[in-house]
Amino acid sequence: MEPDPSTLLETAIAEARRGLAEGGIPIGAALFHADGRLLGCGHNRRVQEGDPSIHGETDAFRKAGRQRSYRDTIMVTTLAPYWYCSGLVRQFNIGTVVVGEAVNFAGGVQWLRENGTRVVVLDDQRCITMMREWIEANPALWNEDIGEE
Amino acid sequence: MEPDPSTLLETAIAEARRGLAEGGIPIGAALFHADGRLLGCGHNRRVQEGDPSIHGETDAFRKAGRQRSYRDTIMVTTLAPYWYCSGLVRQFNIGTVVVGEAVNFAGGVQWLRENGTRVVVLDDQRCITMMREWIEANPALWNEDIGEE
Repeated sequence: MEPDPSTLLETAIAEARRGLAEGGIPIGAALFHADGRLLGCGHNRRVQEGDPSIHGETDAFRKAGRQRSYRDTIMVTTLAPYWYCSGLVRQFNIGTVVVGEAVNFAGGVQWLRENGTRVVVLDDQRCITMMREWIEANPALWNEDIGEE
Repeated sequence: MEPDPSTLLETAIAEARRGLAEGGIPIGAALFHADGRLLGCGHNRRVQEGDPSIHGETDAFRKAGRQRSYRDTIMVTTLAPYWYCSGLVRQFNIGTVVVGEAVNFAGGVQWLRENGTRVVVLDDQRCITMMREWIEANPALWNEDIGEE
């Protein structure tokens, strides 16, 4: 039986909160096998490590190590992925993406769907509120993270 | 004066050869400012570190640290970038991409051009030969790196 997307999201939310507590950008992610096993999880650490490549999804992906196939994996993220992480999903044929919210940022959801990825958008109120409050308080950092000048 | 793309490519080729010498996938990359300054360089380390997220371009990008803007930067890579690294280029609006070769792999060159990135493809014979010989000798590892099962 496929795991419940809302249950999987809890892991990503816990990661986002960890990032927030560290003074970072509150975006968390987790990669699960379709059978519900957690393969890896992580969060955005641009601020904490001065590394602009550590987006939540990239962090979860790398922590999962090398996998034979990603077809039966589920990438769960608190916020819709943008080009960088959407490219990751598409390149490695990650079968399903669960998005905590796409209200504050639509990212590459449409592009992923057009190219065959199953995308489940939950629009979880906790994710929406956490991200909105953070963006309002940190507009420059937010623009840096999504590549806006 | 804009730096010569062939000269910039030398740095990426040196990185690719370093990767090959380490027993890894021979793809190297370097991020330059448009004035010719090297900001960061690196190579694919999937094998060496068991980390599937370290593609050449990602490695060069992260080693460059946080930049205010990528508009005036040049990403140089020995092989055409695929979705993951093309997404990186597009998200951060990297102005120019110099591609050592797109013969063994076309990657996201067309997609990047359609979306406004300037892409210079050199089809350098050293890059073509190095990659072709490596792919022929390591088909499984190659497919893993581009997400083919």
